[in-house]
Amino acid sequence: MSKFGFTLLHTDKNSGARTGILHTPHGDVLTPMFMPVGTLATVKFVSPEELTAMKAGVILSNTYHLWLRPGEQVVKAAGGLHKFMNVDRPILTDSGGFQVFSLADSRKITEEGVTFKNHLNGDTMFLSPEKAIQIQNDLGADIIMSLDECPAYPSTHNYMKASVERTLRWAKRGKEAHQNENQALFGIVQGGDYADLREHCAKALVDMDFPGYSIGGTSVGEDKATLYRMIDHSIVHLPTHKPRYLMGVGSTDAILEGVLRGVDMFDCVLPTRIARHGTLMTSEGRLNIRNAKNEMDFGPIDPQCDCYTCQNYSRAYLRHLIRCDEGLGQRLLSIHNLRFLIKLTEEVRQAINEDRFTEFKDAYFKKHHLNSVNSRGF
Amino acid sequence: MSKFGFTLLHTDKNSGARTGILHTPHGDVLTPMFMPVGTLATVKFVSPEELTAMKAGVILSNTYHLWLRPGEQVVKAAGGLHKFMNVDRPILTDSGGFQVFSLADSRKITEEGVTFKNHLNGDTMFLSPEKAIQIQNDLGADIIMSLDECPAYPSTHNYMKASVERTLRWAKRGKEAHQNENQALFGIVQGGDYADLREHCAKALVDMDFPGYSIGGTSVGEDKATLYRMIDHSIVHLPTHKPRYLMGVGSTDAILEGVLRGVDMFDCVLPTRIARHGTLMTSEGRLNIRNAKNEMDFGPIDPQCDCYTCQNYSRAYLRHLIRCDEGLGQRLLSIHNLRFLIKLTEEVRQAINEDRFTEFKDAYFKKHHLNSVNSRGF
Repeated sequence: MSKFGFTLLHTDKNSGARTGILHTPHGDVLTPMFMPVGTLATVKFVSPEELTAMKAGVILSNTYHLWLRPGEQVVKAAGGLHKFMNVDRPILTDSGGFQVFSLADSRKITEEGVTFKNHLNGDTMFLSPEKAIQIQNDLGADIIMSLDECPAYPSTHNYMKASVERTLRWAKRGKEAHQNENQALFGIVQGGDYADLREHCAKALVDMDFPGYSIGGTSVGEDKATLYRMIDHSIVHLPTHKPRYLMGVGSTDAILEGVLRGVDMFDCVLPTRIARHGTLMTSEGRLNIRNAKNEMDFGPIDPQCDCYTCQNYSRAYLRHLIRCDEGLGQRLLSIHNLRFLIKLTEEVRQAINEDRFTEFKDAYFKKHHLNSVNSRGF
Repeated sequence: MSKFGFTLLHTDKNSGARTGILHTPHGDVLTPMFMPVGTLATVKFVSPEELTAMKAGVILSNTYHLWLRPGEQVVKAAGGLHKFMNVDRPILTDSGGFQVFSLADSRKITEEGVTFKNHLNGDTMFLSPEKAIQIQNDLGADIIMSLDECPAYPSTHNYMKASVERTLRWAKRGKEAHQNENQALFGIVQGGDYADLREHCAKALVDMDFPGYSIGGTSVGEDKATLYRMIDHSIVHLPTHKPRYLMGVGSTDAILEGVLRGVDMFDCVLPTRIARHGTLMTSEGRLNIRNAKNEMDFGPIDPQCDCYTCQNYSRAYLRHLIRCDEGLGQRLLSIHNLRFLIKLTEEVRQAINEDRFTEFKDAYFKKHHLNSVNSRGF
């Protein structure tokens, strides 16, 4: 019997926002949650103990990158990603499709799969639904993804319809190839912002009965209003008793809009990427630590924050580290931004459980001058 | 009354090797010891807690670099280096002289001090004995250094003699300028490998009565046999009840040769610098983690090692991280190499206390094919 499951705890009485528990072979985690991204089997600069201290739930890692380096056979021989990384918490891997469509060159899509040249050495490689499953079986994450096509946005209805049909056939093939009950395989809803295609894709996937569903095609350059429409068009057709994962979305406004609509899981490289360049997420909005005004500021990044960095280091010191391109600076800023988003989801869960999520979201948007159409969040 | 002092615990009955306790305002530390280098107020990638876990004693930081960034006034306003870095252990700063002589351009030495263009933006700067003290007073390390000239090796006897005389006048000026009894100012013995100049310099500094003495000019490209002669020529003239610091030397063979001669303190960027490039110090000698033979090696770097990295990560994972230029890899390898040298000094202290240091050193040299003339250590 599968060790994976989802318990719905509470649905906000005024919105689709909900809290739940995701059960995995590596422990239970609360939703809604933000998942730190560890592309190459490491959240850059951050240790597993630091992930625990920041109360991270699931960690995400990228199949495409690990396929290239170190190769899934190395991770398999190590006993899987958890042992390889020394991480004793749930891990999610994507299918590799998104990177093939965003990083690789000379892509050629056929019914069988995708041929492409990898971005490291240009070698020609081939990814099929079955190959994506085999790699992810070898990596051994708790949650894995079907191979999907991620079409450019916008695409024509004709193109998108054909793409969705292929993604559905790929989902079926992946499901048939996947034989490890300790890994939960999610289907991915595509269809751009075409309501009929999102509906068709979602319903067909639900008919296949996946243990969870992802909403894809949501980080390919569309505006925020379109993103929210994509969620609306997809989520209404998904069962309430299964987890929903909005792929690659992690700005604060999009997280809150996603939660409002019933999304349970989020991930994004944004908080760690901007951290490495000196940009911090705070209760007062974005902060560029390089700014000269921080030179003699011996207070923390954010007095509201309980992270290791804010408890121990000053803005002045962090500014110095980032200006000198010191790895400890990139480490400390990454820890802060991740904890900031994780703490936000803790507050979100509490607000939902107290049936005041819409007030929480409205107050948050008002304070930070966010809106539901085109704000960039922070 | 000064909070600084040195207690000689035991001298090996067959050599000059000795154990002791260095007393500082930030705690007592055992000698002989290896001091991790935190050039820019951070041991690259490594946190203060990790320094504690590896049982680091004193941490070294570089006055020249901190003078340029963030500027000593920022550190002073933070309450000194300890508060700035969040480090609650003894810190040592050098005088800035070595970097002026090795990194900066267009140096011009006069009796007053050194004019130079800094290596960051080419601005003309001036470092005098008094300025070196003022900066170090502002930085607030427990142990600070006199400004000395670091002549090239080899230099003529005439040049070196004039240089030593100037270094002695600078030492006197620095001592007069230094008025903070919470910081112990060390004098630096120079003189190249000229026995008469080392003797003259050491005796003149001892007459000035510093709380500790450094042996300088020892990391400017001389061979190992010359280095050991420099130590011999200097140390015989230094008092037994004061600590001796061999500047910038940290290869295993040189540490053991230094200890044999009565050196108490060592520092070197070598262990962390080579770590960041994938080279590890192990009980079996150097190991290049990038080597293909580590691809499927799921054992630790060194089964003899008790460091965080060896307790938690495999060679295969570390190889992957370093190949991918991941900061976590540089962090984990730095922790290992530092702990390796710190553990070596723990074994050294035990061997001295048991009057078997020469056997310990001989066995170590034999195992690792080291010699007292030209081995490079590891």
